[in-house]
Amino acid sequence: MAQAIDLPRNEAGIATALGVLKQRFGDQFQTGQAIRDQHAHTTTWIRAQAPDAVVFPASTQDVSEIVKICATHKVPIIPFGTGTSLEGHVNAPAGGISVDMSRMDKILAVHAEDLDCVVQPGVTREDLNTHLRDRGLFFPIDPGANASLGGMAATRASGTNAVRYGTMKDNVLSLEAVMADGRVIRTAQRAKKTSAGYDMTRLLVGSEGTLGLITEITLKLQGIPEAISAARMSFPSIDAACRAVMTTIQYGIPVARIELMDELNVKAANAYAKLDLPETPLLLLEFHGSDRGVIEQAEMFGSIAEDVGGTDFATTATAEERNRLWKARHDLYWATLQLRPGAQGISTDVCVPISRLAEAVTGAQDKAAELGLLAPIVGHVGDGNFHSLVLIDMEDASEIERAETFTAFLADEAIRMDGTCTGEHGIGQGKMPYLVKELGATTEFMSAIKGALDPQGIMNPGKIFGPRRD
Amino acid sequence: MAQAIDLPRNEAGIATALGVLKQRFGDQFQTGQAIRDQHAHTTTWIRAQAPDAVVFPASTQDVSEIVKICATHKVPIIPFGTGTSLEGHVNAPAGGISVDMSRMDKILAVHAEDLDCVVQPGVTREDLNTHLRDRGLFFPIDPGANASLGGMAATRASGTNAVRYGTMKDNVLSLEAVMADGRVIRTAQRAKKTSAGYDMTRLLVGSEGTLGLITEITLKLQGIPEAISAARMSFPSIDAACRAVMTTIQYGIPVARIELMDELNVKAANAYAKLDLPETPLLLLEFHGSDRGVIEQAEMFGSIAEDVGGTDFATTATAEERNRLWKARHDLYWATLQLRPGAQGISTDVCVPISRLAEAVTGAQDKAAELGLLAPIVGHVGDGNFHSLVLIDMEDASEIERAETFTAFLADEAIRMDGTCTGEHGIGQGKMPYLVKELGATTEFMSAIKGALDPQGIMNPGKIFGPRRD
Repeated sequence: MAQAIDLPRNEAGIATALGVLKQRFGDQFQTGQAIRDQHAHTTTWIRAQAPDAVVFPASTQDVSEIVKICATHKVPIIPFGTGTSLEGHVNAPAGGISVDMSRMDKILAVHAEDLDCVVQPGVTREDLNTHLRDRGLFFPIDPGANASLGGMAATRASGTNAVRYGTMKDNVLSLEAVMADGRVIRTAQRAKKTSAGYDMTRLLVGSEGTLGLITEITLKLQGIPEAISAARMSFPSIDAACRAVMTTIQYGIPVARIELMDELNVKAANAYAKLDLPETPLLLLEFHGSDRGVIEQAEMFGSIAEDVGGTDFATTATAEERNRLWKARHDLYWATLQLRPGAQGISTDVCVPISRLAEAVTGAQDKAAELGLLAPIVGHVGDGNFHSLVLIDMEDASEIERAETFTAFLADEAIRMDGTCTGEHGIGQGKMPYLVKELGATTEFMSAIKGALDPQGIMNPGKIFGPRRD
Repeated sequence: MAQAIDLPRNEAGIATALGVLKQRFGDQFQTGQAIRDQHAHTTTWIRAQAPDAVVFPASTQDVSEIVKICATHKVPIIPFGTGTSLEGHVNAPAGGISVDMSRMDKILAVHAEDLDCVVQPGVTREDLNTHLRDRGLFFPIDPGANASLGGMAATRASGTNAVRYGTMKDNVLSLEAVMADGRVIRTAQRAKKTSAGYDMTRLLVGSEGTLGLITEITLKLQGIPEAISAARMSFPSIDAACRAVMTTIQYGIPVARIELMDELNVKAANAYAKLDLPETPLLLLEFHGSDRGVIEQAEMFGSIAEDVGGTDFATTATAEERNRLWKARHDLYWATLQLRPGAQGISTDVCVPISRLAEAVTGAQDKAAELGLLAPIVGHVGDGNFHSLVLIDMEDASEIERAETFTAFLADEAIRMDGTCTGEHGIGQGKMPYLVKELGATTEFMSAIKGALDPQGIMNPGKIFGPRRD
């Protein structure tokens, strides 16, 4: 793929840094081919570009030393969480050192009274939620994968719960980070709000490792709701489903999740999980609140959705029933792959104003059909964010080319509709050309910030900023 | 006051820019002493530092031309909204041009389906809400003053509703801004979420005019809730009131407002509005939701508050009753000033983790008593944010000195408790020494960003970044 361009390597600097790091970090430092390859695994169609070595810091002090060594020798530093990023973030196009945060996996503090906690970047969201459960608390952001919280902060991740709880930008109170010169900063105190200077927290959230390495994260938490219920409803068309979503959001119904599956996805789910859902567009919902509140929310949604032609409304309250109802969604990735065994699934990630959602989704369906691609759609539709999972035979050059045409079409259309080429996956290598299309001169000011905070360009080079694509 | 340090003036550049601006802008350009003085009115105890001229742009193009002229001649630019900022933001310590946004007061678009709108920076929040009312929508951020939305974005304002709806950082989707070289950028598209590069929106929100001039704002809106109700409750102590707040937040009751008045403020309200509230700490609340929802919320709060000793619970649903209940809060500034006619009220603005709130508030009360100051406290306590309004005789040097000791004490204590010296007013000139105390080396990275985006230092100089105070 064109996105994974190799950048010039500083061979002398890399060789020296490898020696210094080996001496300093011993067994925490690895250069075996298998481990290097594993750290460039991108879970996408972007060609892997392995780092020269992988180092496993155990503390902020370790990270600071690694950065100082790399800064001295002008060697690229690529942070690594769980490797579930989707746009080539962990690739090493100029070589360099992958900094694997998996040993920085301590939950440092839970402040139940303040509804926050402090974690190291290698803690995964599932580990955190397991730890919190007995305290009656949870961390709501759920991008699907059991990603590390450092990686989620770095890519400004979100997922199914964002319609109610926001994205990582809304749920990180403060970060500790090692900057490009090895200095350690804390972006904010632990107060719930602040007007103290520039919002360095939000600048680092979503910076994809290009400004600093996140070494500690203070996260907002939520009380586990008294009640959680779920619902599903089928619709005669994407347009009808999207109108139901728009009205639900406008009425201020505080849905916790509202997910769209298109007819192709419903078919896949039926086949995979032996369900008998009507093979038309489907909305799956989750409600959080009091016992009475969740019933009220479900009733209000049901009434709104029936008005636009929704049918087969099913609702539930017990965890077991809810899990059965949501099974179609949870298994979707695997179910979809079964539509075409052997194919690779490539996820797109556009997000549009919700008033344009029906047009964007049906436009994507039509374009996929025109190009002869199999590309079922699932969407976090309360936010106007949806993913086509394009199923590609990676041996077929024509199909790859058509898939590139398709992803470019989606990005262009989203931008035309005042939306974005990436709702939650980030720019990485894959979306660089679209960032410039989307934000124009704004990217030059982003570049100026990058230049000011990382003058040597050693922090995850070759990500976010790339060549123009007209 | 020590904060309003005069900075070196570029006399030649200012003289030339005045001539060029006069020629270009005619009647939109003013140099009369009265209008200059009015634009340096800081609503605080910080000494006024008038600009050399005031210009009234009518368009983004005007703003861009003003900035280009000032950039050519290296002349400071100070944005001006309604002049209600509280930390000397509108002062001109190095002289220069005040850019008054009051003629950029158009509501450019309301996208009801997307729950957003696009406004020019001179639109005030009350004007916006008047415009929105017939559409069933509202903009929730309420800092008290009828501030301009540009100013609110620039200072990352919040206020009474933030506990439910967040601050300006959570409610700005995108900004158009004129940067220090006169170029116009848009920070983001109109999608509800994005991972497209650095979060330039959140970088400009709260940057206090030091990075760019905001010329257009895309704001999230809310549907007017089906029901709004209010409640009040009295408590035997600050500690009891704070425990009620903590439990309410922990239970996830989605209070829209939860305001604390200390006993001194309740006394002032009783005297001013002829009320007979128990003269002990008081919580005032507002609930937004469905008809059933607001009743449920009020009941849950009442039960929590009674458990910690709350008394005199009163609740209401009609707008008229609600306004009567909240009158004590709305009139508070004037009521408080009546405690000491002729005194000036100086507002402090610390914010701490909610678990430390009782300690912070009682510590402030004790310190005020020790220093012989009259300093009633009101708090947006759901967020841990509170203000002491210090009532000062500005003719009494000793009293001013004691007030400075008091404000320093509050900032130091807040920082010690992992809180911030400013929850919502911003740094401006008044809080510069505390920013460094609070965030240390982080401020050097803020400075580096400032240097990269405004290399000539013409954008609102002498704000945010200042000398260390140990």
